[in-house]
Amino acid sequence: MRAAILTIGTEILFGQITNTNTVFLSRELNNMGFDVLYHHTVGDNEGRLADLMTDIFRSCDLIITTGGLGPTEDDLTKETAAEVLHDTLVRHEESVRWLEGLYASRGWSMTENTYKQAMMPSRATVFPNSNGTAPGFALSENGRIIACMPGPPNEMKAMWSLSVKPYLESFSSEVIRYRILRTYGIGEPKLETLLLPLIDGQTDPTLATYAKVGECSLRIASKRATEEEAFAAIDEMTAKVMDIIGDNVYSMDDEELYLVVGKKLIANNLEISSCESCTGGLFASTLVKVPGISAVFDRGIVTYSERAKTEELGVPAELIAAKTAESPEVALAMAAGLKKKTGSRICVSSTGVAGPGPYHGLPAGTMFIGLVWDADISEKAAVSGETLPDDPSVRFRVIRMDTVRDERETNKLFCVLKMLDSIRRILP
Amino acid sequence: MRAAILTIGTEILFGQITNTNTVFLSRELNNMGFDVLYHHTVGDNEGRLADLMTDIFRSCDLIITTGGLGPTEDDLTKETAAEVLHDTLVRHEESVRWLEGLYASRGWSMTENTYKQAMMPSRATVFPNSNGTAPGFALSENGRIIACMPGPPNEMKAMWSLSVKPYLESFSSEVIRYRILRTYGIGEPKLETLLLPLIDGQTDPTLATYAKVGECSLRIASKRATEEEAFAAIDEMTAKVMDIIGDNVYSMDDEELYLVVGKKLIANNLEISSCESCTGGLFASTLVKVPGISAVFDRGIVTYSERAKTEELGVPAELIAAKTAESPEVALAMAAGLKKKTGSRICVSSTGVAGPGPYHGLPAGTMFIGLVWDADISEKAAVSGETLPDDPSVRFRVIRMDTVRDERETNKLFCVLKMLDSIRRILP
Repeated sequence: MRAAILTIGTEILFGQITNTNTVFLSRELNNMGFDVLYHHTVGDNEGRLADLMTDIFRSCDLIITTGGLGPTEDDLTKETAAEVLHDTLVRHEESVRWLEGLYASRGWSMTENTYKQAMMPSRATVFPNSNGTAPGFALSENGRIIACMPGPPNEMKAMWSLSVKPYLESFSSEVIRYRILRTYGIGEPKLETLLLPLIDGQTDPTLATYAKVGECSLRIASKRATEEEAFAAIDEMTAKVMDIIGDNVYSMDDEELYLVVGKKLIANNLEISSCESCTGGLFASTLVKVPGISAVFDRGIVTYSERAKTEELGVPAELIAAKTAESPEVALAMAAGLKKKTGSRICVSSTGVAGPGPYHGLPAGTMFIGLVWDADISEKAAVSGETLPDDPSVRFRVIRMDTVRDERETNKLFCVLKMLDSIRRILP
Repeated sequence: MRAAILTIGTEILFGQITNTNTVFLSRELNNMGFDVLYHHTVGDNEGRLADLMTDIFRSCDLIITTGGLGPTEDDLTKETAAEVLHDTLVRHEESVRWLEGLYASRGWSMTENTYKQAMMPSRATVFPNSNGTAPGFALSENGRIIACMPGPPNEMKAMWSLSVKPYLESFSSEVIRYRILRTYGIGEPKLETLLLPLIDGQTDPTLATYAKVGECSLRIASKRATEEEAFAAIDEMTAKVMDIIGDNVYSMDDEELYLVVGKKLIANNLEISSCESCTGGLFASTLVKVPGISAVFDRGIVTYSERAKTEELGVPAELIAAKTAESPEVALAMAAGLKKKTGSRICVSSTGVAGPGPYHGLPAGTMFIGLVWDADISEKAAVSGETLPDDPSVRFRVIRMDTVRDERETNKLFCVLKMLDSIRRILP
C-alpha cells in the first residue's frame, strides 16, 4: 500500500518548529510494510489542502495527516477530508458526550467552538484522544483512506498506537512484526558483510541495517498470518544474528545505550561516579536522564582545568607536565583518583582533544577513556582489564579513540557512547 | 513570490533522518519575504519528482530543492529540473576544471561518474560548493525558478548564503533586512502587550514575536530600496524596543544565551565553576560548547548524592537534614562551598525537583539556584544581591523557580537558562 504523510500547520512552513511527527510516522509506516512515497506540509488553507489531497491520491492509497483538528476557524482538516472523499460533517454524539464529561471533570466550561471538535465526517471511524481534546478519525472511499490525527506529538503518538495502527492493520490479512537490535562498535558495512549469509536469499524474515550517529541498528521483520508466527520467525532469526554479533548488541528493544547501562547499574545497585575533561559533562548529563539514577550515581566532576584535575582527582601535576593532560596516563590517573576519593564501584574518566583543530600535537578526535572498577561486580569484570598495582581487587582499562573527525560535538558524543559501552561490557 | 521547499531523498521517507534543511530554508525564505506554501519530500524517482515539480508550479513561482545532486544513478534532480523547465544537460566546463583541480589537490582520482556532477542544464546559473563536490544551480523559465542545492546541511547552508540567497535577491528591486533580538524572562503575550504601541499601525519595519522553549525572540524587518535604508529603519526601531524591554534582551545577533554568557566570561577573563544537582551536568555540558571556554571554566561538579554535596562542597549534613537537599539554603551553601574550594570569581549551583513527580513535598519544577560572585567583577555585580556575612567582598543571590511543569528535561533546560541569565545580569 502506498502512503503519504501530510502535515497541516502554518508554523511548520515558517520554520518555527521541526517536524518530528513525520519522522515517527515514516518509521512506523515503513515498519508496517507501507511504501511512504511523499511527505507534504501545507498551511491552514482549504483550497491548497484539497488540491494536495486530490493530487496525492493519483499515486497513493493512504494519506496520514497530523494537525488542523482543533476548535478554531483555521482548523480545516475535517472539512477538507470530507470534501475530498465525498462526505459531510455531522455531530458525533459519542464525542460530544466525551468532551462534555472531560470539560466537566476539569471544571472548564464548554464554549460554542468546543463542539466543533465533535463534528466528524458521517462515515468516519472516530479515534479517541487520550492526551488532548480533539478526537481523530479515518475516512475511506473506494480503497482510498484518509486518517487524521492531532498535531501535538504526545497526542498523535498515543492515538497512533491505540487506534490508527490497529485500524490500518485491520485492512491486511497478514501482520508485520519486527524487532530492532541496537549495536555498538560495528560499522554498517561490516555489519552487512557479517550478516550476508543471513540476508542473502532471505525473503522472510527480512534484515535491514540502519546507520545512526556512532552506532548501527538492525531491523528483523516478518510478515505472517498471525502475530505468533511472525514473532516465532523473528525469534529464530534473532538467535542466528546473536550467534554472529551478540557481543555488539546492547538492546533488543530499540532502547538507547545510556538507558540500557543506567537501568543495569540501578538493577545491580552499582554505584558509579564520573570525571570528564574532553566530554565536558556530557557523560553525566546523559546518564542522569535515566529515571531513578540518583540511587547509584554518586557524583560527576568536570575537571576542565589542569588545576582541577590535580585538586579534585589527585592527578600529579608532574604527570600532566610530563605526558600532557590529553594522555592515556592522565585518563587512568583521573579515574583511579576518583575511585580513591569516592569509593564508587565504577569510575570512568575522559580526556583528550574534542576539537575543532589539533591540540598538543594530537589531531581532533584523539580521546582517552579511563575505566576503573571493583573486580567483584561481575564475572566479566573479574577477567577484563588489568589489576591496579596497589590494589588487586580493583581492575582498569584505558581506551583510546581516534574518530578522525574535526567536529567537536560529534567527538564528544562518540566518546560518551564509548564510555557507556565500555561500562556495559563489565556489567553482570 | 510564492515558494515551495522540495527535499529529495529516500532516507527521509524512511524516517532515518530528521529534515532540518527545511527548517533552515523556511526561516530564511520567510525572512526574505517569500510566502512558503509547501514543504514536500519525495524519493529518488524521476517520474514522481517531475510530476510534483509540475504540480507545485500551479501555485508557486519558486522551487528550492535539496538533495539528489550527487554522482550516482539515483541522483536525478538535475535531469528532472531540466525536463520540467524544457532544458537539457550539458558539460559545464568551469565545473569540470574545478572538480579536476579539487580531486588533484586531494590526491583522489576522477572516475567516470565524478563528471556527472559537472553536467548542468544549458541555461543554468551554476553555484560552487565550498564544502563538497556537487555544485548547485538555478534554472528559470517564464518567471518560474528552480534552485537546487546539495543535501548535506553544511554544504547546503554555505551555498545558500554565498550564492542562492544573493541570486534570489537579484530578482527584487527592494531588499528585506532584519534583526533578531533574543529575550529571556518575558513571555510572548507580555512581550506583545509591551510592544503593542510599536506594533500597532506599523507597516515598516514590522515586528514579530516567536516563542521558543523558555524564551522569546523578536524579529524587526524592513523592506526598502537599499540595504542602508533598511538597516537605518531597523536601528531606529531597535532603539525604541530597547527603551521598553532592553533589560530582557540578551542578544541582538540571534545568538544563544550560553554563547553570549560564555563569550563575555572569556572576554572579561572571569573564572567560573558550577555545582549541579537537579540539572545533572546540563549547565556544564552547555557552557563547554562555547569555543575557548577552557580559559575560564575551572570545573563543574555534579553532586547527585547528599554525601557528594557534603564531601565536595562542604554543605553541612545537618543543614541537608534540617532543610532537605532541595532547599534555598542548600543551593546557597553549595555555591558558597564551591567558591571557598575553587576561588573561582563566579560560582553557580542548582538543586531542586526536576521531576517527574513531586519530591520531599515540592512539586516538579521547584528548583533553586545559588549564585556567588566577587563584587568587583562589574558595577552591576557590586550592587546586586547581598554580601556574604563572612566576606563582604563576595555577594550572593538565591533564585527560586516554579516552572509548574512535570517534564524533567524541560525543567532542567529552564533551570540552566535561568542560571545563565542570572550570571548575565552581573557581568560587565
